[in-house]
This record gives sequence, C-alpha cells and structure tokens, in this order.
Amino acid sequence: MNKLSPSFTYRRSEALFKRAKNVIPNGIPGHFNPASQLPMGTYPFYVDRAKGSRFWDVDGNEYIDYMCAYGPMILGYNNEVVEQAVREQLTKADTCTLASPVMVDLAELLVDFVPWADWATFAKNGADATNMAVLIARTHTGRRKLIAIEGGYHGTSPWMQAKTRAGIDKGDHHDVIRIPWNNLPALQATLLAHEGEIAAFISSPYHHPVYEDNVLPDPSYWEGVHRLLREHNVLSICDDVRAGFRLSMEGSPAYFGYTPDLSCYCKAIANGYPIAAVVGHSELNDAATSVFQTGSFWFSAGPMAAALACLKELRRLEAPTRILETGAALWSGLQSISADAGFELVVSGIPSMAYLRTEHDAGPRFHQSLCGECARRGLFLTSHHNLFVSAAHTEGDLAQSFEIFEDALKATKAQFKVE
Amino acid sequence: MNKLSPSFTYRRSEALFKRAKNVIPNGIPGHFNPASQLPMGTYPFYVDRAKGSRFWDVDGNEYIDYMCAYGPMILGYNNEVVEQAVREQLTKADTCTLASPVMVDLAELLVDFVPWADWATFAKNGADATNMAVLIARTHTGRRKLIAIEGGYHGTSPWMQAKTRAGIDKGDHHDVIRIPWNNLPALQATLLAHEGEIAAFISSPYHHPVYEDNVLPDPSYWEGVHRLLREHNVLSICDDVRAGFRLSMEGSPAYFGYTPDLSCYCKAIANGYPIAAVVGHSELNDAATSVFQTGSFWFSAGPMAAALACLKELRRLEAPTRILETGAALWSGLQSISADAGFELVVSGIPSMAYLRTEHDAGPRFHQSLCGECARRGLFLTSHHNLFVSAAHTEGDLAQSFEIFEDALKATKAQFKVE
Repeated sequence: MNKLSPSFTYRRSEALFKRAKNVIPNGIPGHFNPASQLPMGTYPFYVDRAKGSRFWDVDGNEYIDYMCAYGPMILGYNNEVVEQAVREQLTKADTCTLASPVMVDLAELLVDFVPWADWATFAKNGADATNMAVLIARTHTGRRKLIAIEGGYHGTSPWMQAKTRAGIDKGDHHDVIRIPWNNLPALQATLLAHEGEIAAFISSPYHHPVYEDNVLPDPSYWEGVHRLLREHNVLSICDDVRAGFRLSMEGSPAYFGYTPDLSCYCKAIANGYPIAAVVGHSELNDAATSVFQTGSFWFSAGPMAAALACLKELRRLEAPTRILETGAALWSGLQSISADAGFELVVSGIPSMAYLRTEHDAGPRFHQSLCGECARRGLFLTSHHNLFVSAAHTEGDLAQSFEIFEDALKATKAQFKVE
Repeated sequence: MNKLSPSFTYRRSEALFKRAKNVIPNGIPGHFNPASQLPMGTYPFYVDRAKGSRFWDVDGNEYIDYMCAYGPMILGYNNEVVEQAVREQLTKADTCTLASPVMVDLAELLVDFVPWADWATFAKNGADATNMAVLIARTHTGRRKLIAIEGGYHGTSPWMQAKTRAGIDKGDHHDVIRIPWNNLPALQATLLAHEGEIAAFISSPYHHPVYEDNVLPDPSYWEGVHRLLREHNVLSICDDVRAGFRLSMEGSPAYFGYTPDLSCYCKAIANGYPIAAVVGHSELNDAATSVFQTGSFWFSAGPMAAALACLKELRRLEAPTRILETGAALWSGLQSISADAGFELVVSGIPSMAYLRTEHDAGPRFHQSLCGECARRGLFLTSHHNLFVSAAHTEGDLAQSFEIFEDALKATKAQFKVE
C-alpha cells in the first residue's frame, strides 16, 4: 500500500462513532474530541491495536503516532519490559485490601531519582496529584490562596478549569490568582498584594498551554521565582504531569536548575498504566501525612509494577536525552520541508514534547488541514496540542514521517490554492 | 497449620512498613491506615498474593477477606473471566491516542443494565464520577448549591471532605448544605430556604458512613425525596460507587424503587481494574456533552474490557442475589456465635456490604480487639468500615469464618476479663 496516497477511509470508525453518540455524551469525551479534529473526515476515531511507535485504527489504517496517548507512552505501545512486569505482578496481587510491597519499592526509586525529594505518595489522575499537592501546601502554610499561570493546565478540577467552561463559575476560582508566564514583576506584585495569604505557586516547569505556542522559562526566571517565594514563605509546586521524564530522570525542575517543594507526576510514569505521584521534601512530610486522600484503586499493584519497570527502563535507555535528540531531528526535518515549500513551521516548547504551528494567512485553518492531510497518510499529529516523542520512535519512523509530511504539505497547498 | 491459633506474625510486614515510613507519608496512605488498625500488632500491612476470597500476606499468613479491597473485588481476586478479557485487550491496545471500540460496548451495556439511563461516560476514581455528576447538574440547572447527607462520603475532593480534615476549610463547603439521613422535613426546609439555588441532592442509596451503624431508607423515604425534588426542580444524584451491583444489576436505586437523574459507579464495576462511570438520562445529555472532564488514562481499554467482562459475569451469576444471600448467612452466623457468647453483634446496612459492631461496656475497643483477634487467625475484618462479600465466598469460607470468629471471641472475652 502506498503510504503517500490520501487513501485512508474511516468507515468502521464512523459506524462506531454513530453507535457511541447514542450512548456517550459527545460520542468520545475528553482529550480527543471528534468535533475538534478538523477538518472532519480526516481523522480516525477508534484504535484496534498499537505497538511501539505506531497504532492501527479499526479500519486497518496504520499511523506513526506523535501523540503517544497524549503523553503516557514514553517507551512506545505495548513495551515488553513493562508488560512483563505487569503480568508478573498481576499473577500475585493487583487491587487488594492491603498494599503490595511494590509500593515501597516505587517510592524508594522516585526518591532516589528526584534528588531533592524525601517522600512519594500515589494516586491515579494528574489532577489527583495536583489537588493533593495543593492540600499539602495549604495544610503546611495554613493559607488558602494559590498563584497559577494564565493558560496553565493542572487538570479538570473546577478550581483549575477556565471560568468559561460549563458548570464553572467565579466561586470555583476564589482562591486562585492567575499571572502571566515569565513575569517576575507580576509574581512580586501578587505576593505583596496578598502577603500571608498565598499557600503556593503552582506551575508547569515551562509553559505548555493548548492552542498556543509553548514558552520556555527565561534564563533567570526560576531563580527569580524561588527568591521571591522564599522571601514570602510561599511553597513551590511543580506540575510535571506532562513534561515529567521528558527532560531529565531527576524531574524537569532539575533540567531548568531549580528545586520546588512538591512535584506532581503522572502521564509518562508507567508507560500508560494509571498511576500518579506526588513527591516532596521532608519538611512537608507531616502535612502530607495529615492530609486525607484516597481512591478506590490507589493500592493497585499492577500500575505500580509498571511504573517501577518503566522508570528503570527510562534510566537504562537514558530516555530523556534520546527523545530530546529524536524530537530535535524530527522537528528540524519538518521545518526544512516546510521552508522548502515556502512556509514557516513554528516549533515551540521542548523537542520531546513540541508544539507546532504553520505561519499562514489563512490562520490556524492551514495548519489544521495540514495535520488532517498527514493523518490521512499515516502520520498522526493534532493541530492544537503539543506532540510527544517516545523512545520507540526510530530513524525509519522519522524518514517516513518526512515523506508523508512533504506530500501532505503539497496537498494542503493545493487545497488552499497557494502557487 | 492450625488456623485457630493466634500464631500469625508480621515480621516482613513490619520490615516493609519501616522502609515505607522513610519514603511515604504515613507509611501506608489512604484507606488502610496502619495507625487505625487497632490494636497494633494484630494486622498485616502488605499482601503477597490474592486469589478468590482469600489473600496471603508477605509473611505467608492466609486470610478469608471480607474487605474485598474495600469493595472492588466483587467476583473475587484474580477472576479468570475478567483476567482473560483484560489479557486479550492488552495484546491489542490499552492507553492510546484514540479510544478503543470496547468503550462503546461498555456504554451500551451500562445503558442496557440501568433501565432509566440513556448514556454513560467514564473516569478513574469514584470522586471523578461524583465531581462530574455535580458539574453536569450545575450546567443543566444553572445553579450552584448541593444538598448532601451528614456523614455521607462522596470521595476526598475538598467540597466533600469533613471540615475538620487537614487543608479543608469552610470555603470548600460554601456550596454544600448537609442534612440528616431519612429526614424529609429537613430536605423540604432546605429546599424552601434555598429556592432556585440548589442544583442537586447527592446521596448514596442508603446511608453507609464509617465508624457508625449503616441505615436503610425508610419505606417511603425515596418516594418522598423525589416528590420534593420534582417540586423544586432539583436533580437527584445517586452515589452508587460503594453499593453499585451489590443490590441489583439495575443499580441500587432500582432496588429501593426510585429513579435518580444521574448515578455514579466505580468500585465493583471492573473487579479491581480502575474505572468509574456516570450514567444519566437523555435530558442531561447536552449538559454532559458541554462539561469538560478528562484524565491521562481515561481512554485505557484494559479496564473497560475488565468492566465489560465483570458486568456480564455478575449478570450471569446473578451476583447481587447471591452475595446478598451469602452475606445474610454469614452475618446471622456471626450473630448467633456472639449471642451464644453473651454479646449482641449489631449488623446494619445491606447483607452484601454490612457494618458490624459489638455492644460492649468497653465501647468500640472490644469490637476493635475482636476484629484484631480475627485477623491474627485468618479472618480479615476491619472494625470501623462496612465489610464486603464477593461471589467467590463459599460455604466453606463461611464455616471456617464461624470457627475463627468463635475462637477470636473467646480470646477477646478473656482479654477484657469477661466471665
């Protein structure tokens, strides 16, 4: 089959989606909103199977996947090392009345990896981790308010959703003050205006909103942030849910040269198995002990065995370095192809988790169509979210990606009648 | 080995716990708080393996388990039907960029089981489901406030935690009004006092607090509740996270003869695999579509395959009837043994998920010691939480449980110097 022909059809995806709309609000909820996968008819909706860097949709179409399940699949799909560890744990115990010893092993490993962390505790969702970190910060400081970054995402808890979202109102945001990214004067002014009221500053290690270019910290930003936070006795919470282990095995703060008080992990921690973690330093151990957080499956040992195996494998492969290099080669290749075709492909964020945007008079529509044309040829990108590189992506994947991208770009040019 | 001798030792549990305290706040967080497993030295802390109705701790001690992982293990540990379904799904796809077809199958099955439900949507924690139901109710009604039951538990989100918990303050409870269970006048007065402000009444189908006797609805309670809710255009959210599929495959509201607007499921839905669900009627489909809720692993197909297999197997076994019968035989047996020994064992709640308490001058300490003596002999009960019966519990398990209970009761009598 010629991968370059835009020959993909989605009959089975569409039939399933039709059934889904009868029994699931929006058909497909959450991340992958069919209505936002523009233009319609260019994306598959359901996966049949996945392996390594690729998945096959229910119509049998094959894709090189740079979404990696929106982050979790850092070693690639169905990684044998992780799967073997899970299988072994499941023959013993998974969800049980008691915890399994692997919980202790995993906490020890995280404390070993993250140099400043003295303890770890576990949950399921990224938002479980950010919510827990906030409760710990509130308990430790006896204060309520948080400073967060405008456009920063820390899960779908009401206090972190945009005010315009359904069911959310200003009451949910009463304790959250938003300031712009990379803006020390705004941070200082807010700390002064709310002296004694702020429990924590919560932020991702760099700014990765959706629908917008991602922005790295200015060289002196994090040093300045922590000088101000120390002056005002305010805690620093790193939301490393998305970027965690994509920059450094010591956590992203180490990469950017700072030390938070609490860090939150989730997506890439267990190569797709559901687990989240909060790590913190010893001064916060008492607060973390007194906070009550639990969930129905938080003792499940399978995902903990997955995390233990995944983290060890990431270290063995020096995965952060590897995916930063793979990403750098991938994006610069796509940029060259774009430049040759007369377009600027703007790449922002970090190479292992970049955000792409094509400069075009038609606005985001051109880039949306380009991503759609890529999907129809077997290169899976979304247009509005950062993309993810895994340790399973090979030079062969990159070469094929370049070939598809070039063809998709030609088709998009023709569509937008660019000479 | 004589199961009746209180010969269990916990050397490996204690060694692991010592390591855990160095790297995990509280050593073991959440449900199973070692400090609350009184008296100390009578409970194991870590499981090695689990199968059917039993688990084996890391010291090799064997237990008949009536906690069932605090609810999820409704078919028993390591159930072959569920495990086979998960294994098959995992060879195809689990957490992926796209959803798997099993998500549609599962939604169709839930809508089929729950007679009044027109749609289903999925998450990970019970609290994800209750939070989502609340957002849907707020969106649909355009109102903010909730009525909940005093002592009712709907997860560890700040708005539902007790005001006395660490990190929580009255600001978190601003929109929640608590009323006593089984109290229609209190409901009516609250609805009148907050006319036009209440989005929903959220409650479990019967009252199952911790550290307290559980209470069933009065015969006309739910009918009265819904008459009042209709009068005031307030939605009814059933938190069936704990009791779901322990009374009826149609959901607990059907068992008690009422129809809510939204129901939340989690624990027993997938025999231990992490998934939660909200089901609702068609009138709320638009609100459910517009609410934004997502999580890193919400597309994971393994837990959905587990849920599909678990629910079908529960129906095939007529599991709710079966565990209600097993529970009734178990608790009445334990009550007879207690009565013969001169104590009243108070059993409350529903037989598949009962709450036990021994009437004694020493207060809860006697019952705590009794549960501890049971644990040391291989019968795992906690003293402060409702207990769970699974479809894997056999007549043989019950006979052995009676034998252990009788011996533990003798030992406890001796300890409390009862003649």
